[in-house]
Amino acid sequence: MNIRDKVAVIGAGCSKFGENYDKSAEDMIVEAAHDAYTDARIDPSQIQAAWVGTLSSASAGNALADPLKLFNIPITRVENYCASGMDAFRNACMAVASGMYDVVLALGFEKLRDSGQRGLGTFGDHPVVGYGTTAPSLFAMAANRYFETYGIDKTALAKVAIKNHHNGTMSPKAHFRMEVSEDQVVNAPLICSPLGLLDCCPTTDGAAAVIICKEELARSFRPDPVKVKGVGLSVTSGEPYMKPSFAYTGFPATAQAAQSAYEQAGMTAKDIDLVECHDCFTITEILNYEDLGLCEKGEGWRYVAEGRANIDGGAVPVNPSGGLKSFGHPIGATGIRMIYEVSQHLWGKAGDRQVKDAEVGLAHNLGGPGSVGCVTILANS
Amino acid sequence: MNIRDKVAVIGAGCSKFGENYDKSAEDMIVEAAHDAYTDARIDPSQIQAAWVGTLSSASAGNALADPLKLFNIPITRVENYCASGMDAFRNACMAVASGMYDVVLALGFEKLRDSGQRGLGTFGDHPVVGYGTTAPSLFAMAANRYFETYGIDKTALAKVAIKNHHNGTMSPKAHFRMEVSEDQVVNAPLICSPLGLLDCCPTTDGAAAVIICKEELARSFRPDPVKVKGVGLSVTSGEPYMKPSFAYTGFPATAQAAQSAYEQAGMTAKDIDLVECHDCFTITEILNYEDLGLCEKGEGWRYVAEGRANIDGGAVPVNPSGGLKSFGHPIGATGIRMIYEVSQHLWGKAGDRQVKDAEVGLAHNLGGPGSVGCVTILANS
Repeated sequence: MNIRDKVAVIGAGCSKFGENYDKSAEDMIVEAAHDAYTDARIDPSQIQAAWVGTLSSASAGNALADPLKLFNIPITRVENYCASGMDAFRNACMAVASGMYDVVLALGFEKLRDSGQRGLGTFGDHPVVGYGTTAPSLFAMAANRYFETYGIDKTALAKVAIKNHHNGTMSPKAHFRMEVSEDQVVNAPLICSPLGLLDCCPTTDGAAAVIICKEELARSFRPDPVKVKGVGLSVTSGEPYMKPSFAYTGFPATAQAAQSAYEQAGMTAKDIDLVECHDCFTITEILNYEDLGLCEKGEGWRYVAEGRANIDGGAVPVNPSGGLKSFGHPIGATGIRMIYEVSQHLWGKAGDRQVKDAEVGLAHNLGGPGSVGCVTILANS
Repeated sequence: MNIRDKVAVIGAGCSKFGENYDKSAEDMIVEAAHDAYTDARIDPSQIQAAWVGTLSSASAGNALADPLKLFNIPITRVENYCASGMDAFRNACMAVASGMYDVVLALGFEKLRDSGQRGLGTFGDHPVVGYGTTAPSLFAMAANRYFETYGIDKTALAKVAIKNHHNGTMSPKAHFRMEVSEDQVVNAPLICSPLGLLDCCPTTDGAAAVIICKEELARSFRPDPVKVKGVGLSVTSGEPYMKPSFAYTGFPATAQAAQSAYEQAGMTAKDIDLVECHDCFTITEILNYEDLGLCEKGEGWRYVAEGRANIDGGAVPVNPSGGLKSFGHPIGATGIRMIYEVSQHLWGKAGDRQVKDAEVGLAHNLGGPGSVGCVTILANS
């Protein structure tokens, strides 16, 4: 029940993330894909199939085919809320593991800043969570419940923002590259109490791409392919939000996806050297620590407060890229951007933000009203 | 480079297609899924993962998870224009072939009649074909070019409508169950010259589902599993429509997807006993005959005129279900509905419309501005 070591990442690329008013979605797709082609040292003609993840920026395989002139091959669009990119990667991995293709492309993108920010409004078409709730309002409820349960306050959340913005200063392709102070975060304009502006990830344009191939062929492309050890996905109901019984202090979809990925990899959280996780809001990263097993329930706020998520001296550094908070969150791009980031660390190419001796990395997406969790474990041997 | 005989269909279900104002998308999803569960004699708890195809009726894995209460498993949404359903099936097949899962669900659906018919207007967000073109206008150009090239007229198209509406009278779940005459088709209100109302498939609500499993396990569910012999997908540019050099008398995406599926199956068109193809317009079915290799280029209009596409006495019967034309075309549902239909014939369960001695069947979707082709070949041994 797994595809461990059948599939490898042989190249990864990423566009500059940001408010890219001067670039179309197609421009960013080309930027990310060609970055990945160069990294994998392949010609686009070697790509036998592709997967594209986007929430709402384009339709069908033509979202990739036309900008990349990648014609006459199979291309699938995958959409799974904020996990669209990583689920595109997951389906690409399974297709390679099935023996159908040897070399494929997985690319995620979103154009949010001048597209009416489709998909970032209310969860209006969700069958249950459709009563005017927004992403900030859902995660604000989680933050309030966490505060109530564990007796902490907004300063705990600020630690996540401070860390991730610091890491972002070392990420050349990040949307934001600026430090923030606790005072700035705690006193930022309120979006939905207790979440302020600096507790929320920005709306960002961007694209990211990876080249995946059959493990046996990987070393013909590069001496240091990144092995895919496990990819877990789980979908839970959006309905818990409407029920008083929902804990709010964790997302079962994350925990289930992580469990699946760990089982596939034959690993536990103790084997992980770095994590890129879904910090759409500061509270989310704290809940992610717990759901991914980096620490016990109720200990997430301490994990970041004590510096255990830091690049230097951290137990398991989390979001060395700057995370969604600082690198930005173009919905469909994010999952693949995380795999790009983890790969940089496994290749020792992450520059100033490099996690030392990184051998195993985990990437995590959380989608929709917390209902879609996706976790990928990658390793360099 | 194929997954031949690694995967089998062990159950298929379909909702009643039609103007289902009295049913929600969720109602139809439940109807189709439970029809498939019953057919496969499985309990929903045995389903380890799922894929859902929809153009625009819902988002993410929650499109299935919530109506089916199919929680805590991986569910992926696939969108690939009108091939969304069949590409969901394709990804499900590869996942099973990869060894990741043993038993999975692929379900397609669309709610078109009371949802503002999203997705059926212009190709407004297509990067190239965005100049006010509609599906009827694109296929009308193909019809006009075909007429000009081969010296025929609207009566040739009417043969397709007459055949498919006749077949639809024998399909209990079809949207339309009425005969049409040549006079009715040729003199129907004009939609986009030369295509009249009865040259166009209707806008329909519906859902269809199949249960797929690892070949080795298939006989533990039923004595007569349907084997997946090949699944081809190809994406071409939408741009040809803008170029005088585009032939218009065929869709390369169909021909390429068919070639891929035939190669995987180790078969040619001569091995096929029945076809369910994408007759979104009458002209499309004629072009499909040629693109799928049932006859030579320019001979498609003769193929239907001479009765070779008929259930009785046909060379290779085409659209015994009634096709999109009569059964209806709820976008995401159609590809899976075709696999449902082919499976009924391979199981000898197609009632009055049964194709005699059917052993190998082909299903074909064409998506978008003719840019996405998907072909599946199924066999009962």
